[in-house]
Amino acid sequence: MHIPPNVTVTTWRVRVCYVDTDQAGVMHHGTYFRYLEAARVEHLRERGLDYKRFEMDNKFALPVVEANIRYKIPARFDDELAIHTWIGLGYRAKMRFDSVIMRGDDLLTRAQVTLACIRLPEGKICSVPTMLLDFADPQIRGKRKPPPLTSTGAVDDD
Amino acid sequence: MHIPPNVTVTTWRVRVCYVDTDQAGVMHHGTYFRYLEAARVEHLRERGLDYKRFEMDNKFALPVVEANIRYKIPARFDDELAIHTWIGLGYRAKMRFDSVIMRGDDLLTRAQVTLACIRLPEGKICSVPTMLLDFADPQIRGKRKPPPLTSTGAVDDD
Amino acid sequence: MHIPPNVTVTTWRVRVCYVDTDQAGVMHHGTYFRYLEAARVEHLRERGLDYKRFEMDNKFALPVVEANIRYKIPARFDDELAIHTWIGLGYRAKMRFDSVIMRGDDLLTRAQVTLACIRLPEGKICSVPTMLLDFADPQIRGKRKPPPLTSTGAVDDD
Amino acid sequence: MHIPPNVTVTTWRVRVCYVDTDQAGVMHHGTYFRYLEAARVEHLRERGLDYKRFEMDNKFALPVVEANIRYKIPARFDDELAIHTWIGLGYRAKMRFDSVIMRGDDLLTRAQVTLACIRLPEGKICSVPTMLLDFADPQIRGKRKPPPLTSTGAVDDD
Repeated sequence: MHIPPNVTVTTWRVRVCYVDTDQAGVMHHGTYFRYLEAARVEHLRERGLDYKRFEMDNKFALPVVEANIRYKIPARFDDELAIHTWIGLGYRAKMRFDSVIMRGDDLLTRAQVTLACIRLPEGKICSVPTMLLDFADPQIRGKRKPPPLTSTGAVDDD
Repeated sequence: MHIPPNVTVTTWRVRVCYVDTDQAGVMHHGTYFRYLEAARVEHLRERGLDYKRFEMDNKFALPVVEANIRYKIPARFDDELAIHTWIGLGYRAKMRFDSVIMRGDDLLTRAQVTLACIRLPEGKICSVPTMLLDFADPQIRGKRKPPPLTSTGAVDDD
Repeated sequence: MHIPPNVTVTTWRVRVCYVDTDQAGVMHHGTYFRYLEAARVEHLRERGLDYKRFEMDNKFALPVVEANIRYKIPARFDDELAIHTWIGLGYRAKMRFDSVIMRGDDLLTRAQVTLACIRLPEGKICSVPTMLLDFADPQIRGKRKPPPLTSTGAVDDD
Repeated sequence: MHIPPNVTVTTWRVRVCYVDTDQAGVMHHGTYFRYLEAARVEHLRERGLDYKRFEMDNKFALPVVEANIRYKIPARFDDELAIHTWIGLGYRAKMRFDSVIMRGDDLLTRAQVTLACIRLPEGKICSVPTMLLDFADPQIRGKRKPPPLTSTGAVDDD
């Protein structure tokens, strides 16, 4: 299932809605971000963090700064999807949530969504709070920079 | 503006809708795909291809197989965005549309969206038709595989 | 709860996603239609009809021809909503699904969504199939026209 | 075109995006609210009110409290729509924006969207500001209650 060993994985299940389809008869590629986001919220909830409260109490938000996604097999209306999510990278500046979307035994989609942390309402970038970083499993935490191979996205940095 | 030399660039302008915002007060990261898609359709229209007719007449569709996006500065409600789009890569199996999203002089977002070609209604993968490949500028066309550097997405292949 | 007596009511539960909110901090008014639609699909499933199969096997679709919705209290991110759905009207030409959306004991929204039936792919209007009409409880079924009071929408007919 | 005489009508044009379609091959019924909303913002802009500034300067928001919509003919991918919008009703508590959506000479959709006014961030209901009410044409303004016929929505009040 392409999930690295020794990471904490949660699974969130959802059914593809009619509105999610497009005229090609498949789930629209932009809709996956809705479900990946919900899966991240549920990942945090299962590990004890209520993201709604986190935002309100701390005046933080976690904007997405990068997303990379591979669509292997299209999802279709009424499909039951299982979104397996884990923290793929965590350091002071960013956290990356990785997911695979499965339909039964078929891997449909692989995604990496990287979040930064800002303070509201000014929107100023700040360090990822320890309470979040602590969710990153030891082997992927504390690195100030992501390792070169996984950091080289197709959209090159500048 | 990070646009490579000697590619044909089109510009599509759009205003961010209220529905596009989320409670953090910015355009939601998933919404960009709506506008990138519309910009691709307009890119093709400006170059003489009516994508609606293309799908209907040829029973083709161009599903997104990979997307990579960097969010630098958030877009906000009512912002006037300019989406500059060009074909970043074109070969028999895939075409990649690259875009930068600008608000005035600010580069907000960079994105690469890779499409494959399928035959409808079976959904079988086929070669990208010549009429599409011919839109790829000579220096990025005809390569059977994308060059190694740009092909290494953060989501590794398998 | 404003649900009429002697109708078959199903309840579908969903949590409001972050993407569903807008910058006013509430669920966007257009998003309710996503959840009302999913609730209709689940209503039919609970009563033994797989809507996906229904569309595929019969080459039917049920386009929405009218919607009326009252927003009493806004839904917010992460709210757990219960959508209670029943068939409010069923006759040869149309079926109306009625819903109330609750958050705990609070009634947030009331909605009536009217569907017609078309044959695909031509899109020609046809009679609502008996297998669907049979889901309408006896007291609201078989009327060729909806009773005057409930048929007078704010958008007057022509 | 079903537009009442002596009201100030504005026209906003938009093209239906691919993402707006669903697997029935038409624009999804929930998507119309995106375009109706954008048309309201443009209606106000044409009449001198920048809605973004209005929200920010006055800490007001205009939540939708009721919507009624009739779908006559479906919109399809790449259709060029003209959304004609006017203020259909304006009084101290609410404003109603009415729209017809045309594709060429065909009337596709008729809609009435009623807004209330709240103060942010508390969300307390307040009177519609005079600067907004003044946009309502004299014959439809100043009524404390909407006239009985148009107020009787299919979703009855309580």
